[in-house]
Amino acid sequence: VTPSAVNISSIVAARARGRDYVVKTPLLTNHVLDDALGGRVFIKAESLQRTGSFKFRGAINRLLQLSQNDRRRGVVAFSSGNHALAVAEAARLLDVPAVVIMPKDAPAIKISGARSRKAEVVLYDRMLEDREAITNDIITRRGLILVPPYDDPFVIAGQGVGALEALEQLSGDFGIAQPDQAIICCSGGGLASGWSTSLRASTASVKIFTVEPAGFDDMARSLESGRRETNNAQAQSICDALQVQTPGTLTFPILSALGVKGLVVTDAEVLDAMSFALSALKLVLEPSGAAPLAAMLNRKVDARGGSTLIIASGGNIDPSTLANNLSARVFK
Amino acid sequence: VTPSAVNISSIVAARARGRDYVVKTPLLTNHVLDDALGGRVFIKAESLQRTGSFKFRGAINRLLQLSQNDRRRGVVAFSSGNHALAVAEAARLLDVPAVVIMPKDAPAIKISGARSRKAEVVLYDRMLEDREAITNDIITRRGLILVPPYDDPFVIAGQGVGALEALEQLSGDFGIAQPDQAIICCSGGGLASGWSTSLRASTASVKIFTVEPAGFDDMARSLESGRRETNNAQAQSICDALQVQTPGTLTFPILSALGVKGLVVTDAEVLDAMSFALSALKLVLEPSGAAPLAAMLNRKVDARGGSTLIIASGGNIDPSTLANNLSARVFK
Repeated sequence: VTPSAVNISSIVAARARGRDYVVKTPLLTNHVLDDALGGRVFIKAESLQRTGSFKFRGAINRLLQLSQNDRRRGVVAFSSGNHALAVAEAARLLDVPAVVIMPKDAPAIKISGARSRKAEVVLYDRMLEDREAITNDIITRRGLILVPPYDDPFVIAGQGVGALEALEQLSGDFGIAQPDQAIICCSGGGLASGWSTSLRASTASVKIFTVEPAGFDDMARSLESGRRETNNAQAQSICDALQVQTPGTLTFPILSALGVKGLVVTDAEVLDAMSFALSALKLVLEPSGAAPLAAMLNRKVDARGGSTLIIASGGNIDPSTLANNLSARVFK
Repeated sequence: VTPSAVNISSIVAARARGRDYVVKTPLLTNHVLDDALGGRVFIKAESLQRTGSFKFRGAINRLLQLSQNDRRRGVVAFSSGNHALAVAEAARLLDVPAVVIMPKDAPAIKISGARSRKAEVVLYDRMLEDREAITNDIITRRGLILVPPYDDPFVIAGQGVGALEALEQLSGDFGIAQPDQAIICCSGGGLASGWSTSLRASTASVKIFTVEPAGFDDMARSLESGRRETNNAQAQSICDALQVQTPGTLTFPILSALGVKGLVVTDAEVLDAMSFALSALKLVLEPSGAAPLAAMLNRKVDARGGSTLIIASGGNIDPSTLANNLSARVFK
C-alpha cells in the first residue's frame, strides 16, 4: 500500500460506504470562545460520534472492506482505547468477531465500552509487555485480520470524512467557503492525514496544524526535520490517546507532503481546556479530545479576524477522573 | 395581550428577527440511548445555545421589540438564573441597560455569567423576600421595562423557534416528517407553550408532554384538573430552573387547548439522567435540562418503535456541583 492510495476520492467513497452507520456530528460555535479569541472557531464535535470518538469512522470503513471469508475469521486491533471501542462497535454492527488489545490502565469507560459491545478484551501491561508482540501472536494463532489504528489507507480515508462534513457545514450553515486554518490532534497521524487530505483538496491556502502533548511531539519534530523522529520512552501525559513513539510510515509522508506544521500543548493547558469545555461549551472532552481547544485557548495560532476549524476528537473519560479534575482546577 | 397573540406566524417571525443572534443548535442522536429504549430519540441540544440555555431565544425576541426610547430606559428581569443570563446577553448585544434579580442561592455560574455580561445583578433571599415586590419597586423607581420569564407572547414565540428548527432538522437530516411524541421541561410554561404551538402547527397527532420535578408538578395537575393548581410552598428540588408555584396565566390556556399532558420526575431520576448525559452523550446538562431525558430513561412514555423529540434545555451547572454529583453517583 502506498501513500497515493489515500486521496479525496477514497474519502468520498468512504463517506458513501459508511453513511448508514456513521453519525454526522455537529459543527459547533460558541460566542464566549469567539469573543475571547477575536475570531471565529468552528468545533467539529467528534466526541458526539458513535462510540464517543472519531475512531469509528475509520474502523467501519475498514471493516466494510472485508470479504465474507474475512468477516467470518474476525478482526483484531490494538489501541489505547478509542480505536478498540470503534472496532468493537463496527464488528458488532457487521456481526464480525473481534479481539481488542488494550493497556490495563486504559480508562475504564473504554474497556467496559469494548466489553459491552461484545468484543473479547485482552489487557496488557504497558510497562512490561509489548502490544505488537501480543497482537502478532494472536494473529498467528487465531488467524484474525488486523485493523491498524492509523497506518492503513482505509482507516485514514474514513477519518477524513469528518473534515468533508465540516467543510460542507462551514459553507452551508455559516457561509464560509473554507477555513483559514485547521487544528487536528495527532497520535500516529491517521486522523490528521485524513483531515489534511480533505482540507487540502478544498483549498491550497488553508494552514494545517497537528497538535500533540508535550513529550509526545514526535510528529511536530518529524515535520520540522523531514524524517520520522522518536519520543523519549519515559514521557508521560494525561492524553492517553495521543501516545505513540514515532509517526506512522504511511501518515508521515502524507502530512509532510501537504505542508502540515506541528503544535504542542502541556497537560496543564489540556486540563484548562477540558474545564473550559465543560463550563463554557457544555461538552465533555477527554484530555486528547481537548488538545486542539487547548492550542486555541493558549494562542498557539492566531485566530484573530479569521476562521479556524478544530476537532474535538473524543469524550471518553471516566466520570471519576472528570470529577477529580473538576475538583482540582480553578475554573477560568 | 391575549393567548391568540401566540401562533405559528409569530414564531416564524421570531425566527427571522433573531437569526443574526441565535445559535441554530444541533439535533443529536445517540445509539446507546436508542438501543436502550428501543426507539429513536432526537435531542434538541439547547444547552449549546448562546448563554447555555433556550432562554436566550425568548429574551432576544422580546428585546428586539423595544422602541428606541424603551431601549434607552433599559430592562429588568427576575429569574432563577437562565432567564437573567439570557436577558443580560440580549441587552449587552443591543446596548440596552439591564437589571436582573436573582436568588442569592442561584448557581454561581448563572450569577457570574450575568455579571460578566455587564448586567446589574440584584440578589435576594428566596425564603425571606418577595421577588415580585423587589421587581415592582425597581420598575417604579427606575422606569425600566419588565421582560417576563414566560407570560409574554414575544418570549413564548422566541422559545418556539427551537421546535421549528428541530422539525426541519428531523425532516432534512433524518427523513422523519414529524415526531410521534415530544417531551418539554416546564416551569412557568413559556418553553412548553412555544414548542407546543410549533409542534401542533405541523401535526395534529404528535403527543406532547411537559415534564416537571416532583413537588413542582403544578402544570401536570392543572392540565389534569383544567384549572391552575398551586404547589406546596415547602417543596424542594435540585431542578433550580423548574420551580414556580403555579402555571402562567398566558401559558396554561395554550397548553390546555393543545392537549398537552404532564409528566413528573424525581431528583434521583434527574441525577441519573445527568450522569448518563455526561458518560454516554458527552453533554453537560444542568438538572432542569436533564428532566426530559430523565423521563425517557425512566420510561414515563413509551419510546419503542417510534420517534421521540426531547429538549436538553440547559447546561448551566457549577463545576463543583457537577463534581460532587459525579463523585456521589454510581454510574449506570
